[in-house]
Amino acid sequence: MRYLITVSYDGTNFKGYQKQPRERTVQGEIEKALKEINGGIKVDIHASGRTDAGVHAMAQRIHFDLEKNISLDKLCKGLNSLLPEDIFVRNCAEVPDDFHARFSAIGKEYIYKLNMGEYNPLERNYVYQYNQKLDVVEMERAMKYLEGEHNFKSFTKTDEEKEDYVRTISQTNLIRDPKNLNKITFVFVGTGFLRYMVRNIVGVLIAVGEGKLRSEEVIDILKKEDRRAANKTASPEGLYLKNVFY
Amino acid sequence: MRYLITVSYDGTNFKGYQKQPRERTVQGEIEKALKEINGGIKVDIHASGRTDAGVHAMAQRIHFDLEKNISLDKLCKGLNSLLPEDIFVRNCAEVPDDFHARFSAIGKEYIYKLNMGEYNPLERNYVYQYNQKLDVVEMERAMKYLEGEHNFKSFTKTDEEKEDYVRTISQTNLIRDPKNLNKITFVFVGTGFLRYMVRNIVGVLIAVGEGKLRSEEVIDILKKEDRRAANKTASPEGLYLKNVFY
Repeated sequence: MRYLITVSYDGTNFKGYQKQPRERTVQGEIEKALKEINGGIKVDIHASGRTDAGVHAMAQRIHFDLEKNISLDKLCKGLNSLLPEDIFVRNCAEVPDDFHARFSAIGKEYIYKLNMGEYNPLERNYVYQYNQKLDVVEMERAMKYLEGEHNFKSFTKTDEEKEDYVRTISQTNLIRDPKNLNKITFVFVGTGFLRYMVRNIVGVLIAVGEGKLRSEEVIDILKKEDRRAANKTASPEGLYLKNVFY
Repeated sequence: MRYLITVSYDGTNFKGYQKQPRERTVQGEIEKALKEINGGIKVDIHASGRTDAGVHAMAQRIHFDLEKNISLDKLCKGLNSLLPEDIFVRNCAEVPDDFHARFSAIGKEYIYKLNMGEYNPLERNYVYQYNQKLDVVEMERAMKYLEGEHNFKSFTKTDEEKEDYVRTISQTNLIRDPKNLNKITFVFVGTGFLRYMVRNIVGVLIAVGEGKLRSEEVIDILKKEDRRAANKTASPEGLYLKNVFY
């Protein structure tokens, strides 16, 4: 029986999603809990994609197979009773045997939160504390140049093995909190995202917001297909995997 | 010269505001930073009041005296460069010699955040995760009975030395987040608050919201002037010292 779970987590105290020896990871914690539920037999889990250290998830999706049949309610409650308080299983579902959390996904939504106002110690792990004004109109304009199908090689860590850097960003948005205009959220919906892609895009958007780049120069960065053409990677704590679409 | 600083902090990783040997406290961290700024000479600081372990502050006020004259900008920047990332000095001001952060205060505002919806691991240290529905209308009604001058002995830790349990709550409010009605904020403005008073009030409000108490029974609890008449203390992570009025 194949199960799909929807999981939220606080990335602050994890060395990322992916399992690593001797490190506290989201995958490691979930596999440990599942092993207990599965009578001591190891369960391999498959996420929609990894998230890096410090990056959060509102609805990460993970599938796995269990030999024994377990009710969805029992699975959810069992996992949540075993998991640490910074991971929560929001939903459990049964899926067909050919469903795959990563390969069946048709899209994802990421958001990135940034504070242009005064440093807020209470949100230091959840909102990037930029703490200076940015040109929001220019950043919004720059985001629109990224919409559509592009080669995003300039926005990722290049990898010898990797061949395909083409992705489609179907929607971007810049939302200002009406109660606090200094708090902005960048929204990205797309078919898929390369490693560090959202954080590298936000790095470029910040350079645009600072006036170091004009918004239309984003087009040149895309065209160069070279990581060195873009700016530095924005820090992880502002990033959230918000949703995965199937 | 007497200085008044406005400080925000994340209470999660502190054993409360008040200095204690071998414990990480807000007072301890600020005094350590001030000592460094003051050329190695110890500085005693005085807050508007203590906050307990896990309780946050948006605008705690603290005064202290320095022998040497230091510009406000330098003091603010110096402190923030020395303080850990979970404490932030929002403002520095000079005040008259007879000003006292605690005794000059004429009022305070506390808020308490509670989530009636699904457990959110990202807010576990910042919003009390009650995760069940409560009768919001009844809770709001109960809050109104607390407004005005009352003896709040039932809502605090009784102390042999303490004589006066009379305080005035000038304003209460129950705010629901329009984007997520499950997120509620209790607001309390008053002349002063006794130890655990807000959390004990919230404990009673939760009992009202659960239907275990009728809203008007709050009056009986007040009248009893006995801690055993009230319900359990609500957990600290939902509580914020929002402001101090002078």
